Amino acid sequence: MLSAKGLVESRPKAGTRVNERSRWNMLDPDVLAWMFEEEPGKPFIRDLFELRLVVEPAAAALAAIRRDDAQLIGMAAALDAMEAHGLATPEGRAADQQFHHLVLEATRNEPLINLSSTIAAAVGWTTVLKHRGDRFPRDSMPQHRALHDAIAAGNAEAARARMTALVEAALEDTERSLEG
Amino acid sequence: MLSAKGLVESRPKAGTRVNERSRWNMLDPDVLAWMFEEEPGKPFIRDLFELRLVVEPAAAALAAIRRDDAQLIGMAAALDAMEAHGLATPEGRAADQQFHHLVLEATRNEPLINLSSTIAAAVGWTTVLKHRGDRFPRDSMPQHRALHDAIAAGNAEAARARMTALVEAALEDTERSLEG
Repeated sequence: MLSAKGLVESRPKAGTRVNERSRWNMLDPDVLAWMFEEEPGKPFIRDLFELRLVVEPAAAALAAIRRDDAQLIGMAAALDAMEAHGLATPEGRAADQQFHHLVLEATRNEPLINLSSTIAAAVGWTTVLKHRGDRFPRDSMPQHRALHDAIAAGNAEAARARMTALVEAALEDTERSLEG
Repeated sequence: MLSAKGLVESRPKAGTRVNERSRWNMLDPDVLAWMFEEEPGKPFIRDLFELRLVVEPAAAALAAIRRDDAQLIGMAAALDAMEAHGLATPEGRAADQQFHHLVLEATRNEPLINLSSTIAAAVGWTTVLKHRGDRFPRDSMPQHRALHDAIAAGNAEAARARMTALVEAALEDTERSLEG
């Protein structure tokens, strides 16, 4: 299992060795879960946000063109659950991750959909950090609703811009939590 | 191994079953290699190009800002090898993949670097298709050199635009080969 995910390598006569970190598969859901069991370092969290800023705005633009009715209904239900439970609860955080997963799913692009667990890890970790401090966290619901509206309206460029704004705000909150 | 990569799932009493394709990890280097042992379908090739268009222009922009001298020298050497061997040879194709790998490596972003094998699979497959027909394939060296120049000059926006042009041209060639 560890070998299949690039963490270790076994060679005849040389035994089993831990690979250097650059050969770990950070996009593997299990590897990510293991990395997030302890608090990951700031550089890795920034890397994940950079990945989100590369992938999610483009995905939102594709989703606005390709989403079907079931996906739109699922996104709306996820946002209702986020609002009902709040992001300080596991249920609310799961709904937030589900919303971002459905945006990727609506791209109908298999390799992009495979990035979903990596994106979800970044989404979930942000929310944990935001709610750790005692400062009142920013309410991200209006930004999520505006993004959903753009995807529902089939407006690719608005969806791209609104996802960019949402991820940038999440990164700002995360940076503040990491410093505070 | 198959279970670690999401291809099959074993449950007590139920035995081992092949998972639906949506649960396969298409970003895993081994899974990709298996998929490319036979000619993958057109939809999957288009998906990989869409991923390239999402990831590679953003990566080129980051690489222009973060690359070090060793990476620039490596990129130039890869382009020289591409030119010397030509893309009809395995050596030339390996050099092409190495160039694209170095661009991702120069982003210094671990999850982006992990996408390298997926990007390389798309890069390699395009070239196989292009050189399969008897039509004279487009020479992609000038576009590669222009991209390298932008990264060397630290010009993020030019690097982004030139990578976009390069991937779009590769997609056009690939579409033509798939139809022809």
